[in-house]
Amino acid sequence: MTTFSLPFKTTHVGPNYIRQVNEDGAKIPGFISLAVGNPSADAIPSQALRQQIETLMQGNLLTLFEYGPAGGDETYKALTKKRLVEKKGFPADHHSVVVLNGSTQGLGLAPRTFCNEGDEIYFEEFSFTGAIRAARAAGCIAVGIAADEEGMMPDALAKAASSGRGKMIYMNPNFHNPTGATMSLQRRKDIYAVAQKYDLLIYEDDPYGDIRFHGEHVPCFKTIDPDDRVIFAGSYSKTISPGLRMGYLYASDNFVSYLRNTESAMDGQPPLLNQLVIAHTLQSIDYEAHIDEICRMYKRRCDILIDALTQYADPSVSWLRPDGGMFLWVTIPDSVSMDDFYSEMMSHGVGAVRSEGFAVDPEQRGGHSFRLNFTYGTEDMLVEGAKRFGAVTRQLCKPIAASAH
Amino acid sequence: MTTFSLPFKTTHVGPNYIRQVNEDGAKIPGFISLAVGNPSADAIPSQALRQQIETLMQGNLLTLFEYGPAGGDETYKALTKKRLVEKKGFPADHHSVVVLNGSTQGLGLAPRTFCNEGDEIYFEEFSFTGAIRAARAAGCIAVGIAADEEGMMPDALAKAASSGRGKMIYMNPNFHNPTGATMSLQRRKDIYAVAQKYDLLIYEDDPYGDIRFHGEHVPCFKTIDPDDRVIFAGSYSKTISPGLRMGYLYASDNFVSYLRNTESAMDGQPPLLNQLVIAHTLQSIDYEAHIDEICRMYKRRCDILIDALTQYADPSVSWLRPDGGMFLWVTIPDSVSMDDFYSEMMSHGVGAVRSEGFAVDPEQRGGHSFRLNFTYGTEDMLVEGAKRFGAVTRQLCKPIAASAH
Repeated sequence: MTTFSLPFKTTHVGPNYIRQVNEDGAKIPGFISLAVGNPSADAIPSQALRQQIETLMQGNLLTLFEYGPAGGDETYKALTKKRLVEKKGFPADHHSVVVLNGSTQGLGLAPRTFCNEGDEIYFEEFSFTGAIRAARAAGCIAVGIAADEEGMMPDALAKAASSGRGKMIYMNPNFHNPTGATMSLQRRKDIYAVAQKYDLLIYEDDPYGDIRFHGEHVPCFKTIDPDDRVIFAGSYSKTISPGLRMGYLYASDNFVSYLRNTESAMDGQPPLLNQLVIAHTLQSIDYEAHIDEICRMYKRRCDILIDALTQYADPSVSWLRPDGGMFLWVTIPDSVSMDDFYSEMMSHGVGAVRSEGFAVDPEQRGGHSFRLNFTYGTEDMLVEGAKRFGAVTRQLCKPIAASAH
Repeated sequence: MTTFSLPFKTTHVGPNYIRQVNEDGAKIPGFISLAVGNPSADAIPSQALRQQIETLMQGNLLTLFEYGPAGGDETYKALTKKRLVEKKGFPADHHSVVVLNGSTQGLGLAPRTFCNEGDEIYFEEFSFTGAIRAARAAGCIAVGIAADEEGMMPDALAKAASSGRGKMIYMNPNFHNPTGATMSLQRRKDIYAVAQKYDLLIYEDDPYGDIRFHGEHVPCFKTIDPDDRVIFAGSYSKTISPGLRMGYLYASDNFVSYLRNTESAMDGQPPLLNQLVIAHTLQSIDYEAHIDEICRMYKRRCDILIDALTQYADPSVSWLRPDGGMFLWVTIPDSVSMDDFYSEMMSHGVGAVRSEGFAVDPEQRGGHSFRLNFTYGTEDMLVEGAKRFGAVTRQLCKPIAASAH
């Protein structure tokens, strides 16, 4: 049998460091993975979801199983908009919601709608892999911008954007994935000014924005957006259910008409049942109290992980204490080999994602950090995971241990 | 307030003739739309779906609402593959399933994976609008190829492909949307030979393939594919539920690895609940008997529409009797203005989609046909719709009426 030879474009993909941890870990008995990006099982209101689904099954079944509205369910969109306007102060006029098959869909939708082949999209130098991949799959150039503990630095952004080829900034301003960093209001204003100067769109990806457990809410880019250049992306994956795949974009009607047009050519329409389950659940539970409960739970877990690392890790190791979200970014000394550290983690039965996995340019700047998740594992697992991770740092990060390599 | 000016790429979209019928018709009391593409409500096994969902609600809820497997549910994929292999004779070795959010997702996935900007994709000159739009949204050039009552003509395809810029053929070989045409086995072989000569992929889109109510099954392209150049696309939208948005691709493992890679950058993963509902329903009902029932129902409805048109329409009107599917393609004399015909349909309270709505190149070759759906309306509506449509033809298609314009 001959096999067709393929001279076609393929999306560039480097090693998948998250999958690597899972695959390597699966072979190790009692392995503790801090490499995941899942919410806690306790964050999913399973019984409320079940009740709403059972109630839907008592209604008009045909409406549920027929084609839904092409632009998405009106109740889902109205409840989403209402909360954004009332809770976060988003503009209500000439703005609307695009329903997404998981907020991941928006990552490709925006560049496919607004960018041409070869346009530059700016990311923090370590950023969400899915967003980087989606930008590249849409034919754009992903450019990594230097960041500090507040995220992307305006001067570095301005320098990159002076290329004149920039079209969009990808932002994760609250509890950044993977670094956990949160941008101050002043930093957001400074970034916005650069976006104005170089006429860049801002894709404000905020899946963790509601999960703040330290400090005060910082206004979203969408609320300091006189030019309507911000596309806000949100998700119900972290607060209701990741498996139902329901996310959304919020943007000016002008943008939304273009986004909807691209989306309808991508998948026709989002599944109606999934939208209705989310909408009915939002109406049946005290969603704000549910989010507060998640925040309390994650604060406790984050504290447990940090306390255990403080106790067990070598003092040369550092981290940024996040104000919310799901991740702790732990940095080891530059002198330690990342490959050695990874191997030793496996030997100790613990896994975390190495910074190369999030690097826009892993060969140039792979970093010396690991992303540790504190939301999915039980509290006992977090302590044991930190103990094992700490043992690796004590073995490899001591000056004498480092020189032994 | 200033508004950001948008110098970006936007997907070219002409008028949406399907939406136009719906919007115009919504203003007309008692309007009968033959413009839809929906299956009959009776084709949806609503009670079985409800039962399976209720059973799932008694199981492990967390598994349902957490992230699902990135590559899709194994049972959904296994049941899909098993039927393709056993029922249609598809190759089992080194072939697998890609789970789609509705088969529409595949229309963009394939060109985004296998084509470069500016590559040509070949369609019948009238084809599925969603596929044409998806090709263009992926940066490809949609080229319309002349067709007869068996679909695309091999000589015309060969002539177009001699450009050297072709990458893919989009095919709807069974009960074509919109023309209802079915390709003979010989025609399929001839098209395949052209694909071999010019090294073209074949995207075999077969959402209606199971709904045959005349004649014998014709082997799919996928079963006459020694080179593994065929990507088969199927759907549960026409036989189980359009709203659950579950479709699939079936292709060689080599192709699947590239397709999965693109897909994971598009939406992360398909919703698990929707896959499980389909999989459990496939296991709980006699799916083959269910499909047979749909075929009997649609045969009857197709006959009713054709009988009524035979009775009420002007003899100058012609149509192709389909062997299956959901659509009747009715052609009026070239002398009649399509705009006049459309206006008169609205005056008579009936709607069908004009051929321009499916034309790859509507300005060059818009056609003089209308697509009439016979699956969604009740039998009484079909008769009344045909009566009204017939009245329009008798008013406009008579030589004397035509010359009056």
